[in-house]
Amino acid sequence: MLLIKLGGSVALNVEGLVKDLTNLNEPYVVIHGANQYLRDQYKRLHKEELKITSPSGYKSRYTTQEVLDDFLSIYCGLVNKRLVEKMQQQGINAIGLSGVDGKLFVAKRKEKIIGIVDGDTSGKPKVITDSYTGRVIRVNKDLIKLLIKNGYVPLISAPAISEQNEIVNIDNDRAAAILVGNLAITKMISLFEAPGLLEDCNDESTLIKEISFGDIDEHMKFANDNMKKKLLGAREAFANGLQELYFGDGRVEHPITNALAGNGTLIR
Amino acid sequence: MLLIKLGGSVALNVEGLVKDLTNLNEPYVVIHGANQYLRDQYKRLHKEELKITSPSGYKSRYTTQEVLDDFLSIYCGLVNKRLVEKMQQQGINAIGLSGVDGKLFVAKRKEKIIGIVDGDTSGKPKVITDSYTGRVIRVNKDLIKLLIKNGYVPLISAPAISEQNEIVNIDNDRAAAILVGNLAITKMISLFEAPGLLEDCNDESTLIKEISFGDIDEHMKFANDNMKKKLLGAREAFANGLQELYFGDGRVEHPITNALAGNGTLIR
Repeated sequence: MLLIKLGGSVALNVEGLVKDLTNLNEPYVVIHGANQYLRDQYKRLHKEELKITSPSGYKSRYTTQEVLDDFLSIYCGLVNKRLVEKMQQQGINAIGLSGVDGKLFVAKRKEKIIGIVDGDTSGKPKVITDSYTGRVIRVNKDLIKLLIKNGYVPLISAPAISEQNEIVNIDNDRAAAILVGNLAITKMISLFEAPGLLEDCNDESTLIKEISFGDIDEHMKFANDNMKKKLLGAREAFANGLQELYFGDGRVEHPITNALAGNGTLIR
Repeated sequence: MLLIKLGGSVALNVEGLVKDLTNLNEPYVVIHGANQYLRDQYKRLHKEELKITSPSGYKSRYTTQEVLDDFLSIYCGLVNKRLVEKMQQQGINAIGLSGVDGKLFVAKRKEKIIGIVDGDTSGKPKVITDSYTGRVIRVNKDLIKLLIKNGYVPLISAPAISEQNEIVNIDNDRAAAILVGNLAITKMISLFEAPGLLEDCNDESTLIKEISFGDIDEHMKFANDNMKKKLLGAREAFANGLQELYFGDGRVEHPITNALAGNGTLIR
């Protein structure tokens, strides 16, 4: 089984991606983001995205129930269903699911976060208990297998559901790694708004063509925040049995064909 | 099999509804609306909902692609996934699906509408081709049966997908009638923001306790626009094999128990 991960950039060539899917010769699962669509929605709603800064300087999204409402709207509603429509237009019988549906992604919630919320001028870290984020610990693989066996393609989106049945935001790269482990996936393609891992993230000519999975850590120095998450997820995915991970450009005419042809970064 | 239909009012007692679901002794499917949530979202976005008025005075929603984006966000994202969360909290393994997923609801699109769009001061009806609405003609009953057989509860939301694979808005009462026919459903409970069908829609003491399905037409005179759709859907559902339809108050402590106990309007 193959895992396709689509980043949340509005620049991805969704038509091209979906056309490429029709050429795959093995069963596959798709997981997608929608981060840039969510930020666009915030702009329309005149809302600001608040971050929590930990004492060590690490920034995470402040995910209140109100933020989750917008998150659900954009990830599970707008982006997921428009992708299902595009897939159906190419004859792919997609079913869009969030991690909440059928407990597809069960996560361990981080119940307390210590940090400073944007706009808090006290400068003192506080204990924050109303941010709903977590980390996927389990996948409902039976549901995914059931759908695939019956001819459907699962198209999966965050968020997840916690062990206490609360909706929680998750990191998709980590979720992908758990999918790899639970479904015994050996090949994954991750598409985003860059040609692959670059030595200099401002210079697309500095593409790194191939990495051994044992050398992921020493490539962290080339990665910006977003790419760091992808590499951390990759490390976990290889620990869970992945054998080949293709980072590829989601903006080109044939994103999947292009990545598999070796025009991105191959980790193995 | 039982069909539960939830109206799109923010006044429904969702907690109570979901608790009642745990007492049902037969398999069931839930279909829900989200109309008032969508209107609330329009307010937040400072958008206006535009209607098309036909030459005969009939009003329908002007459903452009932009309107569909908001529709997908609120129906399939916000409302559907929050309902899944509440069901999971009561131990019900719900899976939220739109009519687009796995072609659950296939609709015939109305490709041309003749009418005047709100704000068009010309006063002349025009041919409108960019409104995406249709009428459900087919349900993917295999998918619903597959999920139920494997222990899941399908929680279904509009929109549907057209025969040309475009997302189209539909009327939920009509969709319910097609579900009834395709799944051989004999009992349906429809919950909304009123005690049932009233002789005077402003006086809740004028509740009509029981109607024979043959007398639906002569009760149309009591119905406002929204209730008219419910009665039209009911007529179609009985033609498709329904035997009992309970209209009940979705706002009370135990909406389903209350309706089944005969405190709403029973059509049979």
